[in-house]
Amino acid sequence: MSSIEGFKSLTSIEEVLREAGNLLTHKPSMIKVHIGEALGRYLAEDIIAPFNLPPHNRSVVDGYAVRSKDTFGASPSNPVILKVKGFVRVGENLGLEVGEGEAVELSTGAPMPKGADSVVMYEKARRVGDFIEVLEPVPPMANVSRVGEDVREGERILARGVRLAPWDIAVLASLGYKSVRVYNVNVALISTGSELVELENVEDARGALESGLVINSNRYSMEGLLRDNGFNPHYLGIVPDDFEAIRNVIIKALESYDAVITMGGASVGKPDYTVKAVKSLNPDYLAHGILMRPGRANSLAVVGGKPVFMLSGFPVASIVGFEAIAKPLLLRMVGGVEEPKPLVKGVLTRRVNTPINVRSYVRVKVYRRNGEVYVEPLALTGSGILSTLVRGNGILIVPENREGYDEGDVVEVILLRSIE
Amino acid sequence: MSSIEGFKSLTSIEEVLREAGNLLTHKPSMIKVHIGEALGRYLAEDIIAPFNLPPHNRSVVDGYAVRSKDTFGASPSNPVILKVKGFVRVGENLGLEVGEGEAVELSTGAPMPKGADSVVMYEKARRVGDFIEVLEPVPPMANVSRVGEDVREGERILARGVRLAPWDIAVLASLGYKSVRVYNVNVALISTGSELVELENVEDARGALESGLVINSNRYSMEGLLRDNGFNPHYLGIVPDDFEAIRNVIIKALESYDAVITMGGASVGKPDYTVKAVKSLNPDYLAHGILMRPGRANSLAVVGGKPVFMLSGFPVASIVGFEAIAKPLLLRMVGGVEEPKPLVKGVLTRRVNTPINVRSYVRVKVYRRNGEVYVEPLALTGSGILSTLVRGNGILIVPENREGYDEGDVVEVILLRSIE
Repeated sequence: MSSIEGFKSLTSIEEVLREAGNLLTHKPSMIKVHIGEALGRYLAEDIIAPFNLPPHNRSVVDGYAVRSKDTFGASPSNPVILKVKGFVRVGENLGLEVGEGEAVELSTGAPMPKGADSVVMYEKARRVGDFIEVLEPVPPMANVSRVGEDVREGERILARGVRLAPWDIAVLASLGYKSVRVYNVNVALISTGSELVELENVEDARGALESGLVINSNRYSMEGLLRDNGFNPHYLGIVPDDFEAIRNVIIKALESYDAVITMGGASVGKPDYTVKAVKSLNPDYLAHGILMRPGRANSLAVVGGKPVFMLSGFPVASIVGFEAIAKPLLLRMVGGVEEPKPLVKGVLTRRVNTPINVRSYVRVKVYRRNGEVYVEPLALTGSGILSTLVRGNGILIVPENREGYDEGDVVEVILLRSIE
Repeated sequence: MSSIEGFKSLTSIEEVLREAGNLLTHKPSMIKVHIGEALGRYLAEDIIAPFNLPPHNRSVVDGYAVRSKDTFGASPSNPVILKVKGFVRVGENLGLEVGEGEAVELSTGAPMPKGADSVVMYEKARRVGDFIEVLEPVPPMANVSRVGEDVREGERILARGVRLAPWDIAVLASLGYKSVRVYNVNVALISTGSELVELENVEDARGALESGLVINSNRYSMEGLLRDNGFNPHYLGIVPDDFEAIRNVIIKALESYDAVITMGGASVGKPDYTVKAVKSLNPDYLAHGILMRPGRANSLAVVGGKPVFMLSGFPVASIVGFEAIAKPLLLRMVGGVEEPKPLVKGVLTRRVNTPINVRSYVRVKVYRRNGEVYVEPLALTGSGILSTLVRGNGILIVPENREGYDEGDVVEVILLRSIE
């Protein structure tokens, strides 16, 4: 099945990613944002630590800073008695010094007073007025976090391409970074199809559908997928099935945005204006049809170093096209890597038949019964059937070298939602 | 270790979640939002399908709508010849009718014309002018998607508490929903600690840290964790270590928000004003200290049916406290369930020692070598050490009934980032 009606030849996902990936010469937009706005963005610069963290030795427990050699030989029956000179809290630096036979009480995180080289935990000392009885010896640097132990000055703490997580933002704050350069990948979204109608313009949805109109729902899934992955969707509206109209909007989109996604108009059996329009733009690369199911109508071009993803108008096919083709290439543009996906193994409840040489994405329902995990295939055909994604909670990917899996096979599934 | 210095007794995570969970009587705020703004929100209503999807039988392939009985007996050597009356595209409803000996060409998704009950794929027919030669018989309903096959009228398609994914939004659009009721959980964030300074007010970060000040980085991790989970952070600023000041800001926060998170001030060894302040508010429930590590200073109260999470001021301890305590209870308030986490199994490179009866969260680095996955523990102590979260890519949870794991043990780890 390397050739189907209407397509000259389909290209494998692997080849598309490799060939197109090498031609993505466009550098995506960058902006400097306050770290409070940087969550989920991709770093466009390496972050180098401007100083040590902690900036000084500090205690990792609540207790007493001491000179370790003063405690040698201490035991419950023969405690070492030290005089407590004061109390240092986190953020305080009282200039106290610990001399022989002395101790300073301090809270976790407090800087070590001069002279002290270790900390006795509360539990290992008995307080008697202004004195403590140390019940066991502590070695040098016990319970002490060393200067630079957390972060060393000059160290690369976050690399370009990292997608910023909550704790990354906290590290940036701790290092005094108020703003960072992040990628600002603006993706134009174009819906094509004379049958499409915007949700906003529908008064009576049932009536609209019965009269043959299709509510443009793909716009919402694609906007959501882009946002969930840290890219900025810019929806440019519905373009009718007209070569010139589609061509013009794609040309404009390529001028102003870092990438273009079209939805609809890329199937066989209806005029294939989008691929024709992109072809006329003299693309660096064009894959017309991809060896995936659903989504063999998904196509991809690189024009002037920018990707143009021509996704199927069928809801599931376009989502699969985004995940398999658009997301990896958008990530490549920002130096990002795919985040790990939740996987689960389970027993297949029915045989799944898929074509050889095609990567198949089978929607499944994963459930637990009597302590065993089962995987029930929901639908092999019907890429237009969106509800299987709502009813199901997983995707089984059947690789190109298999013609499916047998009932009873243990398969690994990407979990989209928790198992009930 | 069910009691430590300064805490009367620590409570297990399980008990805290159960006891506090049962007392969360406050109903969180709800708002009606346009579906374009609903991504990542929790549904506050069940969604019932107002009509069938598809609203009529439609083709799932590109081909010719026919009367199946006309094709019986067809073969390559003895094809059935049918007259093609026209072409129906998706979204068109031309009112064509298929009579005996007739066919209508149509594209995938197009409504079935009257009279036709099945579709012959292009590949199974030969076009000759206005006629086709059908090369094999098709059974009734072959290649046809039935009315209501995707969604049945009256069916509950999405349940209250579901966190809306991109494809959920698309289903809502397809069903004509322009807006939906979602939870709008507003969480007050309060930082406490006289040593804290806001990043905005720091001119020279190195100097500030060396003088003993602590940049308030927890604010950013907590805001990010709340946003990542679909809740709204409202940061109320830093409150100094002062009983009355803390008490007043918590009272105000409880009046205006659905939940309160405080950070800092909940450790032993520094004045414990937050817990004292909350105690004075006559809470329905109070757990002072939790059997987790890091984060045993994390505490939780329920006041007037609303949760007050008193998280440690130490960065990692507060993040772990959020994940283990705050997130599950906030999810419970909206009827949501924990999303599946990416897990990976690997061989532990060093023994991990953890206390019995405590749930320990060990930051780890997961890596691959010679095809094998290894798990390297990064730090057991030092909840203040944030960089381990940046350097590591996983969390190993050691349950209460274990005192750690041995070198060479195969352990399962939550992956925070992909394996290099």
